[in-house]
Amino acid sequence: MKTYLDCIPCFLRQTLSAAKMASDDPALHEKLVRQVLQEASTMNFDRSPVEMGMQIHRTLRELSGNPDPYRAVKDRSNQRMMKVYPQLLSRVNAAPNPLAMAMRLAIAGNIMDFGAQENLDDETVDKAIAESMAIPLSLDAIAQFRQEVERARDILYLGDNTGEIVCDRLLLEQLPREKITYVVRGNPVINDATIADAESVGIAELVPVIDNGSDAPGTILAECSPAFRDRFAAADLIIAKGQGNYESLSDTDKNIFFLLRAKCPVIAQNLDCAIGVQVLQRGRRR
Amino acid sequence: MKTYLDCIPCFLRQTLSAAKMASDDPALHEKLVRQVLQEASTMNFDRSPVEMGMQIHRTLRELSGNPDPYRAVKDRSNQRMMKVYPQLLSRVNAAPNPLAMAMRLAIAGNIMDFGAQENLDDETVDKAIAESMAIPLSLDAIAQFRQEVERARDILYLGDNTGEIVCDRLLLEQLPREKITYVVRGNPVINDATIADAESVGIAELVPVIDNGSDAPGTILAECSPAFRDRFAAADLIIAKGQGNYESLSDTDKNIFFLLRAKCPVIAQNLDCAIGVQVLQRGRRR
Repeated sequence: MKTYLDCIPCFLRQTLSAAKMASDDPALHEKLVRQVLQEASTMNFDRSPVEMGMQIHRTLRELSGNPDPYRAVKDRSNQRMMKVYPQLLSRVNAAPNPLAMAMRLAIAGNIMDFGAQENLDDETVDKAIAESMAIPLSLDAIAQFRQEVERARDILYLGDNTGEIVCDRLLLEQLPREKITYVVRGNPVINDATIADAESVGIAELVPVIDNGSDAPGTILAECSPAFRDRFAAADLIIAKGQGNYESLSDTDKNIFFLLRAKCPVIAQNLDCAIGVQVLQRGRRR
Repeated sequence: MKTYLDCIPCFLRQTLSAAKMASDDPALHEKLVRQVLQEASTMNFDRSPVEMGMQIHRTLRELSGNPDPYRAVKDRSNQRMMKVYPQLLSRVNAAPNPLAMAMRLAIAGNIMDFGAQENLDDETVDKAIAESMAIPLSLDAIAQFRQEVERARDILYLGDNTGEIVCDRLLLEQLPREKITYVVRGNPVINDATIADAESVGIAELVPVIDNGSDAPGTILAECSPAFRDRFAAADLIIAKGQGNYESLSDTDKNIFFLLRAKCPVIAQNLDCAIGVQVLQRGRRR
């Protein structure tokens, strides 16, 4: 997906929000905002919005001297979701269609995105999860997903945010784990999950976990490590969580399912859905 | 008032909204957005947000080749408000305190600002006006305003937006008109009123109308004509309508009353009020 002009005000909003999160120094806030304005003025808008997200947070880490400004936010999200994990697991096990319930929760978990939203409180997360129980996913789409998972031999599950990864664990537990590898970002960026997070919520005990070698808040293949690119090329099914992975991979010709909440008007328009909708979307080029 | 970093995302939002208003050409939209990003990256944030508004709309007029992109919007606003003018006048005349009612309506009219808001529909305007009837203005503040008006010999009434100027007419009709001069922008900018608008709604028949010689969506004295600056220096009372006039004149040491609706979080914080509040604020340096 390319960058729309409507993304530009949002980049600046995100920049400011991230700057305030990482530092109390107004001089740093101003420096970061000016640098992002400068970079955005010459940005190639044919690239995905994830590229700008990567640049913003790279510059933020450089200017603040803090290699992982969201570490505390990430720990809190993981811990909080691990607390509710047993209840969510009971829900999955008690559901008439446990796979469908786990998919619904995995998508609902995608609300925990500190890029697309500021001030994400516990209440909003609880509400998203509660609502997700009632949201019907297309039975056809679930059947198709199940069929592709059964057919595949080598599946990459691309994770997105901390907290959310606990919901991914619920879905992984419903899938044939022997053929799945879970993928996280190669470096801290926003509240996205890295290896340490996958380990802390127990995903690393379920399936192999690799990182993509990149600090983009999505999957920009050109930014990923050669090792990850080889794995990506070899995989015959990709399960991609979240808006960043959708933005950066929506034009790929891989066999791919996107699981996300549409959290901004641009994505909603691109997916032809309303804001806040839980999306299970097959790759378009297939 | 200086420019806050929180103004930056809003500048970009306004840029895009104005570009779409003025043209259907995506190439023009992109060019304008890139130019504003570039200008904002080096902008002096000690200046008022009105400076950036001026730059944005100057660039928009240059790139679009349209010297007055909001002309149709402005005509529609004026005509629509002239239609309800007789009803509003009856309300003023029937009120126990006609001056207070006229002041309330003059402030309510400040909702008609296409800079601070997009998609301003008739319903929103009607609602603002209806609500304004019930909003109590401080009797002390009104008494103070009345006293200053009585005491003054040379009053400048700085208008703001088209449509809104019909509400200004209601207030002018309650004031000692022989000592008042009404001021409009020197050139078209957003939907701000110019001489033609003051003439079309009948203000020019009530009081002398002058323009400030500038295309800023506010009153940046350094941008105004020497003639206007002389008039401003000579006046012993300024009645300033709207957010742009507040942003650009809040630090002046003139005897001044600001009448506006606080339409954005930055202004609301600066004025220590909630968003949407109708404000009658005395100049601070007095």
